[in-house]
Amino acid sequence: MISRIFPTAQDAENAFYEALERSDLEGMMAVWAEDEDIVCVHPGGPRLTGQDEVRESWARIFKGGGRTRVQITHQVAISALMLAVHSVHENFLLEGEAQPRPPIVATNVYLRTAAGWRMIVHHASPAPAQPVQPPREATPKLLH
Amino acid sequence: MISRIFPTAQDAENAFYEALERSDLEGMMAVWAEDEDIVCVHPGGPRLTGQDEVRESWARIFKGGGRTRVQITHQVAISALMLAVHSVHENFLLEGEAQPRPPIVATNVYLRTAAGWRMIVHHASPAPAQPVQPPREATPKLLH
Repeated sequence: MISRIFPTAQDAENAFYEALERSDLEGMMAVWAEDEDIVCVHPGGPRLTGQDEVRESWARIFKGGGRTRVQITHQVAISALMLAVHSVHENFLLEGEAQPRPPIVATNVYLRTAAGWRMIVHHASPAPAQPVQPPREATPKLLH
Repeated sequence: MISRIFPTAQDAENAFYEALERSDLEGMMAVWAEDEDIVCVHPGGPRLTGQDEVRESWARIFKGGGRTRVQITHQVAISALMLAVHSVHENFLLEGEAQPRPPIVATNVYLRTAAGWRMIVHHASPAPAQPVQPPREATPKLLH
């Protein structure tokens, strides 16, 4: 298990999507908190909890895939001292597809641990196709 | 707009599901933070943000429906000083249906405001049918 320190929740989020793009299982699991209460819901999937279920699911996803691109837009972020919540649109760009797919809506929750910020919840679900809106570039709302 | 004080995130969650069961729009909106960054994703739906979109969506849902029952199971809860995250299974019990439906997976995020705990994120998505497991009765994990 590689160990990385993420100084902010945004750093953890960037690493999460970089690992997803590279199908990098160790990079992906380095983003998650070492906690049995972590929760992951893949689009259309059941709720997975704990390191083993979450790791297995990403291993299965990454096994099939080569490189993909995912563009993150429409971020809404709420940050507190110990927890941060990011709601985003994941826009997957797959080779050979002319039309962009409808976005995946994701709720990502990060926890400040002794080893920096780590992901504790990733809940993703497919959104219906909708008109293109300009990305919303929100500044994280700091509660204190 | 009715105003209620929820001393804990769990109180806010209870009020959320009570309002949902009663198709009570004012009761529902009393649970949400008065904030333009609130986020709501109904099962299979797009991401809605802000009071107006969220209220309209519940008004639409409640317009069609009479009373329903929803049983909350499999709660995983993480609480910090200002934010709390609950992951739950919502089990809808509809009259006239013999078989229980597959659960809806929901991620609910609550914010401690000057007026008590309020919901800021509700992200719900359908889970595939799965074997019945005993409900997990977890004690909320307190970070400090």
